[in-house]
Amino acid sequence: MIKKKQKKRKKQISFNKTHWQAGTMLYPLPAVLISCGTEPSKYNIITISWAGTVCTDPAMLSISVRPERHSYEIIKKNKEFVVNLPSRSMAKAVDYCGVRSGRNVNKWDVCKLKAIESQHIKTPQIESCPVSIECKVKQIIPLGSHDCFIAEVVGVSVFSDLINSKGRLQLEKAELISYIHGAYFAPGKLLGTFGYSVKKN
Amino acid sequence: MIKKKQKKRKKQISFNKTHWQAGTMLYPLPAVLISCGTEPSKYNIITISWAGTVCTDPAMLSISVRPERHSYEIIKKNKEFVVNLPSRSMAKAVDYCGVRSGRNVNKWDVCKLKAIESQHIKTPQIESCPVSIECKVKQIIPLGSHDCFIAEVVGVSVFSDLINSKGRLQLEKAELISYIHGAYFAPGKLLGTFGYSVKKN
Repeated sequence: MIKKKQKKRKKQISFNKTHWQAGTMLYPLPAVLISCGTEPSKYNIITISWAGTVCTDPAMLSISVRPERHSYEIIKKNKEFVVNLPSRSMAKAVDYCGVRSGRNVNKWDVCKLKAIESQHIKTPQIESCPVSIECKVKQIIPLGSHDCFIAEVVGVSVFSDLINSKGRLQLEKAELISYIHGAYFAPGKLLGTFGYSVKKN
Repeated sequence: MIKKKQKKRKKQISFNKTHWQAGTMLYPLPAVLISCGTEPSKYNIITISWAGTVCTDPAMLSISVRPERHSYEIIKKNKEFVVNLPSRSMAKAVDYCGVRSGRNVNKWDVCKLKAIESQHIKTPQIESCPVSIECKVKQIIPLGSHDCFIAEVVGVSVFSDLINSKGRLQLEKAELISYIHGAYFAPGKLLGTFGYSVKKN
């Protein structure tokens, strides 16, 4: 069945790639919960998919936020935030924190998320997220609808049970969520590991 | 079985989140094939996972590239590139184009990829990728090991058979590849669509 489908597609696309409207079409993207605020009354969470790694050494990532979002001023003022990677069981909270504003609701309470202390910054991390990445903002680049916050990673916390007996982090077991064109997905089948295409048998 | 596993994890993590080394830990990320070069003798492909959307309006994305990579000078000189989203059947080519250099091999030939004309820029796109995003570089930000190229999306092409009879782009059918901590994955189960957490039944 799958083979048949692929065959059909192959025939069509060779001569049939359609022009689509220019827009944000880079996927899959991470669906992450950004925690922000350095004092309890200001703690907030915002879901972001406009996020990515931008440098290996030093480790840096970027998140893009609309200036009208409640979290925008909090992050801009404190120059720090935490990127919390949620697992598939948290998909509903991920969606909720993206469509509701911290001006009107306390997302920690509604989503039953617990703030725990970070190691290197004042912003708390989300306890139930398997990975939390503590970040300090280095640059803010206004681009249009969004400002891009480029930040350095200053600390990482992971679920202890993701680390195997050899000390390897098994991130594939965290069942992280990706965002593809308006929908959330769990990871599927492993296709290969880095370098597998040139490995000798 | 899955329930049992989750229960076990829940018990452990409440009090047991481990400090890990600071590093690039934001996942899942897209695994994409960047095509570059404006004349056939210079055409090259490089696999990038340090890529993300940075602005909705105008539509902008970023890719980060090490200055020592063969594609770096090509992109810097031409100020344009195409982000091609590969489907799972192309995983081996995705890996290969990330570990081999265009200085030594012609990746188009080795991976049997065909360059076809783009709409708005001189850089060709990869025919067999279900989505190709034409980009013009707006800013180059040196960060350390990588320079971040911030670019505006000027055109998008998609496989015609991903567009259904109502004109909706069914990107979930493209079976795009994500990169998680050293491995490539196909998309898995749909968890929900944007806004589903607040929809009335």
